[in-house]
Amino acid sequence: MKKRIAILGSTGSIGTQALKIVKEFPDKFELNLISANSNDKLLLKQAVEFQPNDVVINSEEGYKNIKKNIRGNPSIHHGAGSLCQLIENNNYDVVLIAIVGFAALLPTISAIKSNKKIALANKETLVVGGEIISSLLKKYKSTIIPVDSEHSAIFQCLQGEDINRVENIILTASGGPFRGFDLERLGSVSKKEALNHPNWSMGNKITIDSATLMNKGFELIETKWLFDVPFNKIKVLVHPESIIHSLVEFIDHSVIAQLGQPSMYIPIFYALNHPVRNKSYAPKLNLTEIGSLNFEEPNKNVFKHLNFAYEAIKAGGSYGCVLNAANEVAVDSFLREKINFLEMASIIEKSLEKITFVKNPTLEDLLEIDLKTRVFARSII
Amino acid sequence: MKKRIAILGSTGSIGTQALKIVKEFPDKFELNLISANSNDKLLLKQAVEFQPNDVVINSEEGYKNIKKNIRGNPSIHHGAGSLCQLIENNNYDVVLIAIVGFAALLPTISAIKSNKKIALANKETLVVGGEIISSLLKKYKSTIIPVDSEHSAIFQCLQGEDINRVENIILTASGGPFRGFDLERLGSVSKKEALNHPNWSMGNKITIDSATLMNKGFELIETKWLFDVPFNKIKVLVHPESIIHSLVEFIDHSVIAQLGQPSMYIPIFYALNHPVRNKSYAPKLNLTEIGSLNFEEPNKNVFKHLNFAYEAIKAGGSYGCVLNAANEVAVDSFLREKINFLEMASIIEKSLEKITFVKNPTLEDLLEIDLKTRVFARSII
Repeated sequence: MKKRIAILGSTGSIGTQALKIVKEFPDKFELNLISANSNDKLLLKQAVEFQPNDVVINSEEGYKNIKKNIRGNPSIHHGAGSLCQLIENNNYDVVLIAIVGFAALLPTISAIKSNKKIALANKETLVVGGEIISSLLKKYKSTIIPVDSEHSAIFQCLQGEDINRVENIILTASGGPFRGFDLERLGSVSKKEALNHPNWSMGNKITIDSATLMNKGFELIETKWLFDVPFNKIKVLVHPESIIHSLVEFIDHSVIAQLGQPSMYIPIFYALNHPVRNKSYAPKLNLTEIGSLNFEEPNKNVFKHLNFAYEAIKAGGSYGCVLNAANEVAVDSFLREKINFLEMASIIEKSLEKITFVKNPTLEDLLEIDLKTRVFARSII
Repeated sequence: MKKRIAILGSTGSIGTQALKIVKEFPDKFELNLISANSNDKLLLKQAVEFQPNDVVINSEEGYKNIKKNIRGNPSIHHGAGSLCQLIENNNYDVVLIAIVGFAALLPTISAIKSNKKIALANKETLVVGGEIISSLLKKYKSTIIPVDSEHSAIFQCLQGEDINRVENIILTASGGPFRGFDLERLGSVSKKEALNHPNWSMGNKITIDSATLMNKGFELIETKWLFDVPFNKIKVLVHPESIIHSLVEFIDHSVIAQLGQPSMYIPIFYALNHPVRNKSYAPKLNLTEIGSLNFEEPNKNVFKHLNFAYEAIKAGGSYGCVLNAANEVAVDSFLREKINFLEMASIIEKSLEKITFVKNPTLEDLLEIDLKTRVFARSII
């Protein structure tokens, strides 16, 4: 039987790759829903090509444009409320959440409450809403299959294993374009240099997050919520080739790792096919061609964003929300060349000091804290 | 509840390491039986120290020596027949088979027939008796947990996975002391050089088998029988650091690997504790310290023993028996400095040509073929 798939954020990088997989395996997947924020042109094209039951777009203008250009099927819907309702009222086998940013939180909650299997490719859901999502997952017994190369790797390494027998979860990091740089050199790097990632081709925001190691920091926080492990069991290992996507060390000191070419194909494909593995068109790993895999410790004195992440794991509560919001403002300012590379950390640091910490925030608290942080962070640039 | 352990071959390298583990965890293990071929001095010492229920020695003289020196418990027995009977009549939770050579076959069959969980550290059982053992395992629904770093790695990588979704099993090989040598250089290597293995400290026979890659070849054959995969799904990858102990590539092109310090502690400990992982005193892996892992293809034109192994997997039947017997004679002759390094392959090649192939050998057939091969191989030295 075909799997009924919903792809939230179908016009983004993960969304389009997921659609490519759906297209490659018409016997395995049936696309039931796609959604986008504002890219109505691409969404319309996808709607016409894939003929899902439902198409949701967030922007009012985009909605009008699509409505104008389509007659009959699929049904076109508008806004986050419709999206959440569709998730709750339909039987999808997998809901792939590839929406960027905070906007993913509400549809994720809808998917959890309606017991869907969630393929999660959004960071903010866990970085910002970790406490809320984690308790909802327990309450509704829903499952998250992570769609991030590192968390997918950890998830795969834990198959058939007991999480209570884990000594350390070791996330690998390419180290970004500034691996080995000291603080002085980092102070004068350009936007162009920061956007030049050695292994992965991604959007601008996440590429800068990779250069500051904030991206790895967010992954540490996500690891805490996905696998329910304390901060002292979550480690980072710099591995420039990005071939070992992460490792799990067990209490007997045996280490299991997941490897593959640096491509999002495998994590997306794995999540869509879970719990079985199927034949894929993913690039094959050839270790002889690669020749050598290298490892080194990350320099936390230089890449301070990692420390923010460890603090977020220890503190929980609203810490991740402030960290995420302040970082977004900082990265945006760096991309608009208003601040230098090192000033990004200072803005985050000051925001974390300024914004009052809340231990058990509600969703409304988080929205308010997010806004407050952005206002404050912008005020100090 | 403590696990009742039987250690066959307790005076050898694997046996003594297993006893060390039993001693480290008196709350987890209860030693019920130990056995040895002829080292009565060490076996007596172990019997006095560990007080198992039963002690078995193969040599008549050794039996007399131990009997003389022990009064009361434990019971002392003599010969392979007694050993098999004890295995069949007692409730051991794990039978660790660390006997060297062909002699392991009968007690392994006893363990299978009495539904014991077998921790197998003997190569000949599967290299020579693969067809017989494999069909007995299916008939009696017994389990083999491999105690070889490579097969233990594969076994661990397959936890929670479906063997039918495996694209390739990739055994790593250190490449031995003569990695990168051409045929000319190999022709003049000395016994001393061959005994100088870069990563593992082992007995003389297995160290030479590592230098010729025959050891890796045997492991390929064992992989076939342990995991029931065809020859074209079993690969060798040279990895000089011996940190990745083996890898499993799945049909979605995701690769799972097991890593650890080059030490037999983890595979022994894993097998004794299976199906759970427990806290161990195994050396911890530190990839930052190691710094770099390297990979290259093995040169099958130089290391011909690998091709013998692939032929054995394809042919099945008595091929492995002839290969094993001819190799033993060849290694023995090399160690006694009667032939040079390259002549070992020639002796095997000639024996494989000479000895008539039997498709479905019985145990008696194998014993006869083993003897015939040894007689022939010795005759051409």
